Amino acid sequence: MPRQSLRKALALQLDPELRSEPGLSLTNKLLMALIIIAATAAIIETETAISRGYDLQFRLFEICVGVAFVIEYLARLWIVPESPQYAEKSWPRVRYAVSFAAVVDLLAIIPIVAAFGGGGSVVLRFLRLLRIIRLAKLGRMSRAWNDIVTAIHSRRHELLLTFGLATILMLISSTLLYWAEGDLQPDKFGSIPRSFWWAVVTLTTVGYGDVYPITALGKFLSGLVAVAGIGLIAMPTGILASAFSDVVQARKRAKAP
Amino acid sequence: MPRQSLRKALALQLDPELRSEPGLSLTNKLLMALIIIAATAAIIETETAISRGYDLQFRLFEICVGVAFVIEYLARLWIVPESPQYAEKSWPRVRYAVSFAAVVDLLAIIPIVAAFGGGGSVVLRFLRLLRIIRLAKLGRMSRAWNDIVTAIHSRRHELLLTFGLATILMLISSTLLYWAEGDLQPDKFGSIPRSFWWAVVTLTTVGYGDVYPITALGKFLSGLVAVAGIGLIAMPTGILASAFSDVVQARKRAKAP
Amino acid sequence: MPRQSLRKALALQLDPELRSEPGLSLTNKLLMALIIIAATAAIIETETAISRGYDLQFRLFEICVGVAFVIEYLARLWIVPESPQYAEKSWPRVRYAVSFAAVVDLLAIIPIVAAFGGGGSVVLRFLRLLRIIRLAKLGRMSRAWNDIVTAIHSRRHELLLTFGLATILMLISSTLLYWAEGDLQPDKFGSIPRSFWWAVVTLTTVGYGDVYPITALGKFLSGLVAVAGIGLIAMPTGILASAFSDVVQARKRAKAP
Amino acid sequence: MPRQSLRKALALQLDPELRSEPGLSLTNKLLMALIIIAATAAIIETETAISRGYDLQFRLFEICVGVAFVIEYLARLWIVPESPQYAEKSWPRVRYAVSFAAVVDLLAIIPIVAAFGGGGSVVLRFLRLLRIIRLAKLGRMSRAWNDIVTAIHSRRHELLLTFGLATILMLISSTLLYWAEGDLQPDKFGSIPRSFWWAVVTLTTVGYGDVYPITALGKFLSGLVAVAGIGLIAMPTGILASAFSDVVQARKRAKAP
Repeated sequence: MPRQSLRKALALQLDPELRSEPGLSLTNKLLMALIIIAATAAIIETETAISRGYDLQFRLFEICVGVAFVIEYLARLWIVPESPQYAEKSWPRVRYAVSFAAVVDLLAIIPIVAAFGGGGSVVLRFLRLLRIIRLAKLGRMSRAWNDIVTAIHSRRHELLLTFGLATILMLISSTLLYWAEGDLQPDKFGSIPRSFWWAVVTLTTVGYGDVYPITALGKFLSGLVAVAGIGLIAMPTGILASAFSDVVQARKRAKAP
Repeated sequence: MPRQSLRKALALQLDPELRSEPGLSLTNKLLMALIIIAATAAIIETETAISRGYDLQFRLFEICVGVAFVIEYLARLWIVPESPQYAEKSWPRVRYAVSFAAVVDLLAIIPIVAAFGGGGSVVLRFLRLLRIIRLAKLGRMSRAWNDIVTAIHSRRHELLLTFGLATILMLISSTLLYWAEGDLQPDKFGSIPRSFWWAVVTLTTVGYGDVYPITALGKFLSGLVAVAGIGLIAMPTGILASAFSDVVQARKRAKAP
Repeated sequence: MPRQSLRKALALQLDPELRSEPGLSLTNKLLMALIIIAATAAIIETETAISRGYDLQFRLFEICVGVAFVIEYLARLWIVPESPQYAEKSWPRVRYAVSFAAVVDLLAIIPIVAAFGGGGSVVLRFLRLLRIIRLAKLGRMSRAWNDIVTAIHSRRHELLLTFGLATILMLISSTLLYWAEGDLQPDKFGSIPRSFWWAVVTLTTVGYGDVYPITALGKFLSGLVAVAGIGLIAMPTGILASAFSDVVQARKRAKAP
Repeated sequence: MPRQSLRKALALQLDPELRSEPGLSLTNKLLMALIIIAATAAIIETETAISRGYDLQFRLFEICVGVAFVIEYLARLWIVPESPQYAEKSWPRVRYAVSFAAVVDLLAIIPIVAAFGGGGSVVLRFLRLLRIIRLAKLGRMSRAWNDIVTAIHSRRHELLLTFGLATILMLISSTLLYWAEGDLQPDKFGSIPRSFWWAVVTLTTVGYGDVYPITALGKFLSGLVAVAGIGLIAMPTGILASAFSDVVQARKRAKAP
């Protein structure tokens, strides 16, 4: 069965789960490099100071990458029955095709249409955004990924609650500053949604400097918010630190008899 | 006793403590949605670019929400004897009415007065602030809330001391900058309270850019303060991280026999 | 021995180490309040918009506080032999007088001289700085203080090394930006000491916005420095988090038999 | 064998690994001081406001430091056979000469050429950069260094993945802002590489204020990115906190029987 053995060999090259040795296969390394190069090209293309005069080259490169991604997508679809994750189930290829990884792969192919057909500039710009998603494919190749996902998942309620508390804090802050400085700086604090921009920038300690209070009362309230921002950073960090500790300890206990 | 069983059924809908299954009841989910919608409406109303011309609609919506909140408040007061927390004690409804949750519920009803009566614009603006408190009701519905409260409570002394040390550091910093740049930038560093605004903005690493030192000495002192700001972030984060670790380990030990 | 018992009674009021119950004695609470009020007055006095016309009142208040602090200082010196920490040693009062706490107490008395005598404005301004030190006295009254000191002390080598690495990183960054933007923005990046201000502001993520790169190379290098700044925050936080965990666990182990 | 014993004595002075007592030998302390002084001089020399008129003095000092560093380099090369790390292997001195420490030492000598010969100003400026590397020698003298290296090394995969996720997040953010504000602020968001500068400054919470969104959509997206920046700080901090905990616990377990 040469066709069967070819599929087996290809699956060993493409599916990191089937690989006995650690690390990535040569084919996956090349695909990873292609994704990074394609993403870099898509980013550089937007900078007209660099890309002007190379329109044809960029379009040709885009078509080549698109063809390579179409072939990769079809190959991954073909090898699905080799994967222990899908083989036992009914409709394995359909199940794979609706998985997150496969949908991202499919979306990464769409910009090729924009390269072939003319397309309006607005449509093109939207499709260009999708190219960046190609990078998300890098993530699923890593096994260290699991640790981070487990840590965040085990504390998802606490992290969500922290996020909720931060939102409430931002709302209260923006209401207070709207009340304190709304009349003096109407374009910056003239409504709660406008003040909210200030609250986000202050609580996350970004502090661009486009919006800041000018009255003594506003500065006092703003100072309280900035100090609370320290807490906003400390809470999720503390939660994640203890989560990572647990993940590593659980792994050690699993190893010990 | 149909009235008794009605109260029992209502209590099961409104009091998450009486619920055997995890999650929120349908009634509480609807109330949560109403609180979020009411808060969103109150926020949008302040932005005249959106709300202009819809004054009547906003006032009508406000009255509807207010009526719903009054009914909820009375219902929660009625079901108090069903709660194991209050049932055994004397004067259960009075005890509940002075609890934090009930006071927040009551305050959330006040803006309805502003919607009915005319009220001065200043009074209205103050009452609008209270609407945001409606959001605080979301918090008490969550059980993950307990973990965060336990963690912060177990380290309240260390966190307060960190806060105290940060305040002393801010005072020393503002005194030093008042001394170093008070004569050159009198409107920004001309007194310790004025310098304090700079100290808060620098130590919390917000850095708006409205106030910064211009002399070599001022920059040197400011650099030391900025580096100390890293410590100000590191201290509470480290304290909270160890607190969350303890909370999770304590829960695990409680589960194990 | 009435004098002995008076000294004993006073020591129980002033020395928190001799107190069997937790918390502060009434005398210490009053002294703490006086220190906070005196510091607040000293801060407000610098703001001429508030203090103008109240010169006499501020001077009188300063003299009263000074007298109270002189009495406190002498009282603390008198009760030294009651303290188990000093009683057994030779020259107990001299040993106490050169301790950190006693020196801070003594320095806090000096501004009274400035209030009595005229003094030059420059001398006065310097002495005013010392008043803030009065606040440092608050710290030593707390017992939670020990946990923080133990945690920092147990990781002092790692924290110092982190500080050293941050300094080297700042030096390398400022040299690179001096090289990249020195010619274009000579007043901001024209020398390594000038670039250093930018490096401190960027690595601590303060980002005032008075100095920032304008070339593509400068922005690229600056981006690397900003990302390294995240590491600069993560390192001491991680070190302190594990230190606080250890301190709490050590205390628990000490309690368990 | 007086030459042998001289080499032995010198090795005990220069190689901290051979030293039985903790701390640094007198010779190493002096060398450390010289490195700091030489680096300080190199930094100050770039500030013409200070160094103008002292060109000769700076050049003379540079030659002295250079000669001292050449002697140190040759001495370290001579004592290599005394080190247990290199003595057993073939070609010990060549092995040492290509080690990281020796290469840094060699690079630190190069600026002396610039001091002797004239050299073009551009070449000189590049060589001056190397002087800072002298400071890296301080690091290898410390033993606390090992803890930090072990902690980072044990979590290198997670830290790299966090860095990768941050890069993807920055790319997605810059694409979104390029789409939202590219037409309004073409010099700031006119291409993805230009938006990337904004993404770095926002995600690291530096926030200079030279680039910020002005539309409601841009502010909304920017707010999401700023909040995600908190996560970007929390992730590596949490990972490092658990790593430091492990390093300290492992050391304790190694001590216990």
